[in-house]
Amino acid sequence: MTDHDRRKLAWAYLSRVAQGPHRELADFAVHAGPEAARIELERGRFGERLQVRAHIDTAAADLDLISALGGRLITPDDDEWPAWQLLSFDGAGMPTASDQSAPFALWVLGGISLDELCERSVAVVGTRAATAYGEHVTAEMSGDLAVDGWTIVSGAAFGIDAAAHRAALGVGGATVAVLACGIDRAYPSGHARLLGRIKESGAVISEYAPGTTPAKHRFLARNRLVAGLGSAVVVVEAGWRSGARNTAAWAHKLGRPVLAVPGPVTSASSKGCHRMIREGEARLVANAHDIVAEIGTIGDVGDGRPSMFRDIDALSESALLVYEALPASGSVSPVELSERSALPLVKVRSVLPLLELEGFAASDETGWFRLARA
Amino acid sequence: MTDHDRRKLAWAYLSRVAQGPHRELADFAVHAGPEAARIELERGRFGERLQVRAHIDTAAADLDLISALGGRLITPDDDEWPAWQLLSFDGAGMPTASDQSAPFALWVLGGISLDELCERSVAVVGTRAATAYGEHVTAEMSGDLAVDGWTIVSGAAFGIDAAAHRAALGVGGATVAVLACGIDRAYPSGHARLLGRIKESGAVISEYAPGTTPAKHRFLARNRLVAGLGSAVVVVEAGWRSGARNTAAWAHKLGRPVLAVPGPVTSASSKGCHRMIREGEARLVANAHDIVAEIGTIGDVGDGRPSMFRDIDALSESALLVYEALPASGSVSPVELSERSALPLVKVRSVLPLLELEGFAASDETGWFRLARA
Repeated sequence: MTDHDRRKLAWAYLSRVAQGPHRELADFAVHAGPEAARIELERGRFGERLQVRAHIDTAAADLDLISALGGRLITPDDDEWPAWQLLSFDGAGMPTASDQSAPFALWVLGGISLDELCERSVAVVGTRAATAYGEHVTAEMSGDLAVDGWTIVSGAAFGIDAAAHRAALGVGGATVAVLACGIDRAYPSGHARLLGRIKESGAVISEYAPGTTPAKHRFLARNRLVAGLGSAVVVVEAGWRSGARNTAAWAHKLGRPVLAVPGPVTSASSKGCHRMIREGEARLVANAHDIVAEIGTIGDVGDGRPSMFRDIDALSESALLVYEALPASGSVSPVELSERSALPLVKVRSVLPLLELEGFAASDETGWFRLARA
Repeated sequence: MTDHDRRKLAWAYLSRVAQGPHRELADFAVHAGPEAARIELERGRFGERLQVRAHIDTAAADLDLISALGGRLITPDDDEWPAWQLLSFDGAGMPTASDQSAPFALWVLGGISLDELCERSVAVVGTRAATAYGEHVTAEMSGDLAVDGWTIVSGAAFGIDAAAHRAALGVGGATVAVLACGIDRAYPSGHARLLGRIKESGAVISEYAPGTTPAKHRFLARNRLVAGLGSAVVVVEAGWRSGARNTAAWAHKLGRPVLAVPGPVTSASSKGCHRMIREGEARLVANAHDIVAEIGTIGDVGDGRPSMFRDIDALSESALLVYEALPASGSVSPVELSERSALPLVKVRSVLPLLELEGFAASDETGWFRLARA
């Protein structure tokens, strides 16, 4: 057994025994190594609760199970461990006191390396009680982002989460579902097929060992990973007191921009978003372009790949409005574009050839459509 | 003829000849008096454009006409001249340089004194191309404000303006229409009846002498009076480039809070509001309570009269939600209140007796309704 394998077993062990985040243990494990952390855990250094569970060593069986499912465990030792800033490090590379904790490891289903998936990623979350409006806007925004190469991170719940995942899948984009239970479980069970599709073109991940059941506190802990894996958190719809605000709070702690989509003031499902905007907890965003602009103001999170959203900054306002009115999938007529963009038809007709010339749009016998870019 | 009458004739003369705001002339007239201003105008001190018009003296006829219509001219000499801060004064009471100008005088139809009307007032403006959503929200907000004794100031245009005036009239509240033409003209002509009703329970006013026709630059100048007469400006719906943003810009110059109502991001009629919120030009407000809270943060603009909105600050969050769900007119069932407030029915039922006890709500055989306060 290699040193890497022994450490992987120790990370799997810690993941199983800790059953969720544990800052002190995580800090120690990153610093002194997972095997030393196990020994100290067994000695009671990290409290009685963990000590009485210390004998539960299912690491080898868990790794076999995940492997049989076609998945893997990734740990801080692996190249694909995401470069999230859940832990702070001081000048000497030592983790500093932090009230956030990175997971011990991540159980993953899906073939793409996780760091690649999350290099350009946006968390899109919201209420389970989504309205038709909320699902529509989620689909438009997430589809536009995914077309542009952004990975959509969410929690696979009903409502906004599901709409976000589905939109990314719908345009052939990448999406990551972060679960609050073991990844061998489909939760919610109504999303078993959706989770299967997410695994195919992205990843289904969890910090919980296989077999772990969902529980309220796990959803809250899961939210910090959703926030940590995105370059920004977008709340599309949220009631006055919504779980999405918990994800937003994590994003604040982690220094991620928190963005919220407004809606009708008559809709209970938008009250949480309006509240966050009013109270300065979130910035208003109305479309994918706004989201990318907000991420851009925080610092360049890209990897140097060309981004459609950077290029279109050079477009005129009219051209931008027409471009934004082009659907992420399907095609539309100039008349429809005029209605969607609120620009006169004659203006739309004058702008379309420019967009075609610049490679942003094209047309066929069905109408005009947006060109996807790598 | 009294000195007051002579000065009134001179103000009427300046109003006719200047045909709109003229900072230098206005500053001089406030400082040296309107009769001295007339003499200097005739000598060419305020430019050739005014000098060539100096012979147009219809002041006596204009005052007769307005009197025949049941109206009056009010001037800086009158007690009811609004206490707007369009002009700044230095410590010695001298007007200081300012790029805003107060009107020379206001032509008024309506029986209530203008300073009383505008003591507690909110300007509610927006696009002529209002949606059903925008008109609904305008009606709810303006009705709630008017029930609480706030005067609704707007521009009598189609769309949001008309919905705001009508809502105030509908709850027996006060409203002021500021026109960009003479008040002897009904503009738009489709609003002749509406303007007649506004005159009955508020005021129709203009800085333009009788007979003046509407023109684009007059609408822009008119917007500064709408902004100046309200303690805050609320933009309910506005397209990407909307005249309402001009009113908002005046409000900024005049130190009034600028507030905007969000809407569906899919609606072209909300794009201007979202843009203003995003760019920090306006604060998001979702209801009348938010509006009053924003005015409160700027400084107490009230006159000491009891305000419902101050009292309800003491209510619990649930009670506040139920209170806000009560309609400004008509009545609703507890089930409807539960739907509107997104609170469980059992909670609504427990809160209603409290609201009744505190005098915020009452019920009859038709359901629960909000109690109006003086």
